[in-house]
Amino acid sequence: MIEEKYKLAADFALTSIEGIKRTGIKLVEMRDRYAKLVMPLEGNVNHINMMYAGSLFTLGEINGGVIHICAFDIQKFVPIVKEINIRFRRPAFTDITVEVSLEKEEADRIEKEAEEKGKADFEMELNLVDTNGEVVSIVKGVWQIRTMPEGMEAPFPKIQ
Amino acid sequence: MIEEKYKLAADFALTSIEGIKRTGIKLVEMRDRYAKLVMPLEGNVNHINMMYAGSLFTLGEINGGVIHICAFDIQKFVPIVKEINIRFRRPAFTDITVEVSLEKEEADRIEKEAEEKGKADFEMELNLVDTNGEVVSIVKGVWQIRTMPEGMEAPFPKIQ
Repeated sequence: MIEEKYKLAADFALTSIEGIKRTGIKLVEMRDRYAKLVMPLEGNVNHINMMYAGSLFTLGEINGGVIHICAFDIQKFVPIVKEINIRFRRPAFTDITVEVSLEKEEADRIEKEAEEKGKADFEMELNLVDTNGEVVSIVKGVWQIRTMPEGMEAPFPKIQ
Repeated sequence: MIEEKYKLAADFALTSIEGIKRTGIKLVEMRDRYAKLVMPLEGNVNHINMMYAGSLFTLGEINGGVIHICAFDIQKFVPIVKEINIRFRRPAFTDITVEVSLEKEEADRIEKEAEEKGKADFEMELNLVDTNGEVVSIVKGVWQIRTMPEGMEAPFPKIQ
């Protein structure tokens, strides 16, 4: 279930970037500091019918923006991706799911640092999982939130 | 210039996977053990008009397949991606170019190992460069070539 207050911003995150939208990725759950996403196999296969590496990358990388929506103040901060490492452990022959979450204490610490320094890095490790429960890929990323530059309009729709 | 003998296989690499094709990525040069690719900014921007991280990933990751075509025997080996690290150094506001190459000695060594062991890993570091010559992202990848499984038809069109 996607909590009502997040629906507009979540829809924006999945549809405002053409390269994300065209994969057909779906958000299936979102509540405070937690989300779950699914990348459909259909439309994302390579020449030997496994999920294309780039679609797995998208499923991992998007979590910087997704957790931004449900863990940080999106009117005050913008998310940036700094570095992504993705290890392809096994071939992905089904739809692939990822869950992302952040502890409240950790989210508060990151926001506090960003308020003080204008920016704050944070790392996440994410498992991309097939419908048999196998971890097909492991994504380690470094993202950053920055205070909104003066005069910049928040790219995300306001959370009600 | 794309050497005539590579045209069919190169076209296959860029168009047979929907997730690659829909980015509009272009191969502009290919000769023995060398290629140059361009990712157009158009169709690949994020919500603040920089190139989307996933499109930069595609421009890096595809080089495993691209170098495969012009450096290895594509009727004997298949390419696999094992791990990709991408560091986003600067925002990408123009079309982005990458060049990939492999020394003959290195290509021969990799093929020899794959023939002996059935597979061989190889690493490449690639600079993604904007039209001002700035390196916007650095991709480090580990790819592998494997001997074609018995009964498997080579996915690439034959090089004439």
